[in-house]
Amino acid sequence: MMQIDILTLFPQMFTGPMESSIMKKAQDNHAFRYQTIDFREYADNKHQKVDDYPYGGGAGMVLMPQPIFSAVDAIDKNESRPPRIILMCPQGERYSQAKAEELAKEEHLIFICGHYEGYDERIREQLVTDEISIGDFVLTGGELAAMTVIDSVVRLLPDALGNAASAQEDSFSTGLLEHPHYTRPAEFRGLEVPEVLRSGHHEKIAQWRRMQSLMRTKQRRPDLLENMLLSKEEQQWLE
Amino acid sequence: MMQIDILTLFPQMFTGPMESSIMKKAQDNHAFRYQTIDFREYADNKHQKVDDYPYGGGAGMVLMPQPIFSAVDAIDKNESRPPRIILMCPQGERYSQAKAEELAKEEHLIFICGHYEGYDERIREQLVTDEISIGDFVLTGGELAAMTVIDSVVRLLPDALGNAASAQEDSFSTGLLEHPHYTRPAEFRGLEVPEVLRSGHHEKIAQWRRMQSLMRTKQRRPDLLENMLLSKEEQQWLE
Repeated sequence: MMQIDILTLFPQMFTGPMESSIMKKAQDNHAFRYQTIDFREYADNKHQKVDDYPYGGGAGMVLMPQPIFSAVDAIDKNESRPPRIILMCPQGERYSQAKAEELAKEEHLIFICGHYEGYDERIREQLVTDEISIGDFVLTGGELAAMTVIDSVVRLLPDALGNAASAQEDSFSTGLLEHPHYTRPAEFRGLEVPEVLRSGHHEKIAQWRRMQSLMRTKQRRPDLLENMLLSKEEQQWLE
Repeated sequence: MMQIDILTLFPQMFTGPMESSIMKKAQDNHAFRYQTIDFREYADNKHQKVDDYPYGGGAGMVLMPQPIFSAVDAIDKNESRPPRIILMCPQGERYSQAKAEELAKEEHLIFICGHYEGYDERIREQLVTDEISIGDFVLTGGELAAMTVIDSVVRLLPDALGNAASAQEDSFSTGLLEHPHYTRPAEFRGLEVPEVLRSGHHEKIAQWRRMQSLMRTKQRRPDLLENMLLSKEEQQWLE
């Protein structure tokens, strides 16, 4: 069972997302367990202060190293397989499905979430094994980013999803964007489901879907096609 | 005041993140208000079904158009300034700080969150104004992605943050990754704060920070430097 520890000043943010739907089922199935750790409780100063002014001046506060180092020290760890200690920050490696697959093979993940403040550089240099950013946008804290990473990792764990097939067939696992989907009714507000999908002709349906996937990927994410092996027919069709 | 409506089958996921810290303060400051809408309540079939099998076959279920169209129809809208209707999906435009700034100028945002299922293509074609992806990784649903977008938009709203300065000085607003931060103590577990930051010499501190930002950006995200205007001195230094 994977163990996930989350260092945060806002533990109450995690309850809803971590206790709903697949995250809940995955815990019921013993795919993982998690706890939140309020690192303010590890501050060894009188007022449980976790941040202070930056050396050299400037706006904003900086998270002090001591509470975070002490909180990580206090976590039970398997000496023979040390945990990945992950800092959520805009300067980190851009998160990807490949990274999700890599993290899903681990036994123990520790996430450190800052909140609209900088991290003391010594945390970055001496404590963490990975720095992850979920994208080029600014959030008020690392909590939503950590939950995003956890969600994408947990769904890859054995026993997390009822149906392992659905994890495999999702977007990005083929390297292309998904083809359009249609369901009931056949006509809705004047808009009809394409004829081919109602034909029952499996080969034509598969071909239509592949072409739609290729077309959508070319229009929206041409970068994904760059390293893709396409048949001669597909190449001609795209041109 | 910005209005945010969120269509989801898991409204309980939103409480923690939307009612903590800056999201809470921003609502107290009347920067925005939000509601979650369980679109299952708008299903006009007997069993309140929201999904069905895909036309043409295949694994997985597809969200039907009717409940989502009806839920959006029922939302109060300002006719003269129609809402942005945003579908969270892996096929969408890659989310960025520029998009956050664009959305922060709107008065009304509607988010549609699917959950490990496809969307009927007619939702995409006829209802939504924007399709957004937060990155190339697979999540169990659109909820965390929607909260991520909302968090990044809300912090840009006037009156959301106590201190408007901090929104401006964050990562990405300069186009570079942030320089290292240090705070108390000057020495921690044998690791010292760089001398220059304790010198009190403002010009040298500013120069050190700029160079550290440039160096970190070159090492970690060289793509960000491509369209950057650098002084001759900075260019030489980086080489």
